Amino acid sequence: MIREVVHVTVLPEHNADFERDLQRAVTEILSQAHGLIAFSGIGWCIERPNVYLFTIDWETLEDHTIGFRESELFTKWREIIGVHFDGPPTVEHFSL
Amino acid sequence: MIREVVHVTVLPEHNADFERDLQRAVTEILSQAHGLIAFSGIGWCIERPNVYLFTIDWETLEDHTIGFRESELFTKWREIIGVHFDGPPTVEHFSL
Repeated sequence: MIREVVHVTVLPEHNADFERDLQRAVTEILSQAHGLIAFSGIGWCIERPNVYLFTIDWETLEDHTIGFRESELFTKWREIIGVHFDGPPTVEHFSL
Repeated sequence: MIREVVHVTVLPEHNADFERDLQRAVTEILSQAHGLIAFSGIGWCIERPNVYLFTIDWETLEDHTIGFRESELFTKWREIIGVHFDGPPTVEHFSL
């Protein structure tokens, strides 16, 4: 199992919309991804309230980096949540 | 509840020793901290194998920033694991 750890900075005053759309994107899009184990929305950063952290567990690294990122699902995922991003997210993968 | 998210870069070839000592520090020291809910050792970063991520859940922010950090326990905690650090760790707090 691989844990994808994502930091997202959202545009000013987009917090509520981002939270709503992230939940929607997880339910409608991410849930269909091959190799998905679990999504966990960790929350917003106290030191930087426009920064969110969430994690996605995958069966393998390639399920994320190839299977999901190169799919139509990823395009739709980013269409829903990317509108709230203030710059590109930071993505790291951790081996548990 | 507050989730403390810690990135630690360890010195070259300290991985095994850090993993062992982190587990020891959690069992012997962190477990005594007031307000501690849970420790989770997430693992090492695939993109940067000397970087570890772990999380500590606290009842309140102050349980970490004041109660733990200003205690004798913190001195002992850092004595055990700090010897493996390659620079100061990055610490953020998230509201869930």
